[in-house]
Amino acid sequence: MAVLLSTKAAAIAEWEAALSALDPTLVLHRHPFAGDPAEIEAVVMWTGHDPADLRRYPNLRLIVSMGAGVDHLLAPPGPPPGVPVARLVDARLTQAMSEWVLLNVLRFHRQDPDYRAQQAGRIWRELPAPDTARRRIGILGLGALGADAAGKLAALGFPVAGWSRRPKSLPGIACHHGPDGFEAVLRQADILVCLLPLTPATRGILDARAFALLPRGAFLLNAARGGHVAQGDLLPALESGQIAGAALDVTEPEPLPPDSPLWTHPKVVLTPHAASVTIPASVAPQVIENIRRARAGEPILNRVDPAAGY
Amino acid sequence: MAVLLSTKAAAIAEWEAALSALDPTLVLHRHPFAGDPAEIEAVVMWTGHDPADLRRYPNLRLIVSMGAGVDHLLAPPGPPPGVPVARLVDARLTQAMSEWVLLNVLRFHRQDPDYRAQQAGRIWRELPAPDTARRRIGILGLGALGADAAGKLAALGFPVAGWSRRPKSLPGIACHHGPDGFEAVLRQADILVCLLPLTPATRGILDARAFALLPRGAFLLNAARGGHVAQGDLLPALESGQIAGAALDVTEPEPLPPDSPLWTHPKVVLTPHAASVTIPASVAPQVIENIRRARAGEPILNRVDPAAGY
Repeated sequence: MAVLLSTKAAAIAEWEAALSALDPTLVLHRHPFAGDPAEIEAVVMWTGHDPADLRRYPNLRLIVSMGAGVDHLLAPPGPPPGVPVARLVDARLTQAMSEWVLLNVLRFHRQDPDYRAQQAGRIWRELPAPDTARRRIGILGLGALGADAAGKLAALGFPVAGWSRRPKSLPGIACHHGPDGFEAVLRQADILVCLLPLTPATRGILDARAFALLPRGAFLLNAARGGHVAQGDLLPALESGQIAGAALDVTEPEPLPPDSPLWTHPKVVLTPHAASVTIPASVAPQVIENIRRARAGEPILNRVDPAAGY
Repeated sequence: MAVLLSTKAAAIAEWEAALSALDPTLVLHRHPFAGDPAEIEAVVMWTGHDPADLRRYPNLRLIVSMGAGVDHLLAPPGPPPGVPVARLVDARLTQAMSEWVLLNVLRFHRQDPDYRAQQAGRIWRELPAPDTARRRIGILGLGALGADAAGKLAALGFPVAGWSRRPKSLPGIACHHGPDGFEAVLRQADILVCLLPLTPATRGILDARAFALLPRGAFLLNAARGGHVAQGDLLPALESGQIAGAALDVTEPEPLPPDSPLWTHPKVVLTPHAASVTIPASVAPQVIENIRRARAGEPILNRVDPAAGY
């Protein structure tokens, strides 16, 4: 029995090394696999692997996403019914994401784009000091990533409100849920941070209607998926001043096409889906443990509910 | 008896309002004061006020700096002997400084200058993920500002070492002192943060010798005083690659002259002495309390030792 690995060419050797280091008996194959499909008991995959391929393996008993998101493998036709799907929950992934959020919250909070422009113009002028206690942060998504970012922002003195599909309770965070909660969070989010899973319910959730709920001149951070932002609604919101700046780690499609106006927009800060990058050596233990559990018929860790989409 | 206020024209009305709101009986004058010098019992001052002027007031019993630094009022000839000098220690000043430090540590840690350059070139390319647990931070100065920044960086998972003149002990921070300690901190500082007071002992402390102690490709943050950096040594260290980037909130002189090469240096990030700006309403209570204490002959808060320079 074997494990099929499927990711970018640049990363596959690192995955093989990390898994083999923990279990040298593991038989690893690279996708696409030309051997007998009945050999494959687990698929560990990232974007770019058509989920229809998963139906080729009659003995499949585990599917693992190589990241926190699973939208890529839940896309139609989705995973074969009954085969458990796991995502990664990892301290380094969480830490890296919170760093990206802190960097970009502080960038806008501390008027850094204005100071960069002043430096380019050789202007030495102090801007009005921002008041952290009055800079309200809204976090969309209160899973492992959103909860960690919310806690770290609250620890710095920012008032933080969060929104999630199901009710949650987090110390020091004003937690909201449901449609009314979504509106309540957006209405007072001077800086809005999207860390939602991408599901049919959240696709395009950041649209013109949502932007209009924000206080005028709010900032937007998106490190979730490009599909959360309604194509065509962001640029008008930036042009009108309703949104004063956006930090985007994700776009649709990726890579961002060379002719996208986002590249050169003065209010847009881009990173190339680099906010939180899986380190194979860091996550290998949970992958190995899930393979063991799948073989033993035990409940797997960080299991995804395909119906909920995360 | 009266209080003399001395600061930038743009700030003086805010100071008057903040102090009067707490004590409407306080008699406030603006520097320069044309009345009877014997009236002045306290001077609350910022840079630009010649300390020689302080000798004009025979009944002076308190001098307050409007910031955390006191180098401006300790400059020759210094304050009149025997008159107590106070600096400000304020939660908002401390918080603002730590935000500036976090923003710039994260900027360099997360390769933000490289990602800005990639965006300008429409390049979508993930850089190697940085490892927070291996990015060693060195903090020079472990007073109210340095200790807070050190604690917040350690809480984010960075290994933090600090250096101060006198021995200190801070939870989770490797504390060093003395000349050997200075060298030990610099030798392992991937990101070096200067938050020292400017004194005769620390002027020019960041010179070619200090830069050579840093790991090659280190980053430098200076939010203390421009005088901590030896003029003429920084640009060669940036050119050689010994220092890979510098974030400077302070320069010598200020404002930075229009012909300084720092303005356009691709590895230099400038802010105009804006990292931590005194909010008069936030610090007015401690100033009022110190005036009360000076009148009552009680020990004043946050008193400076002119011999030590801070």
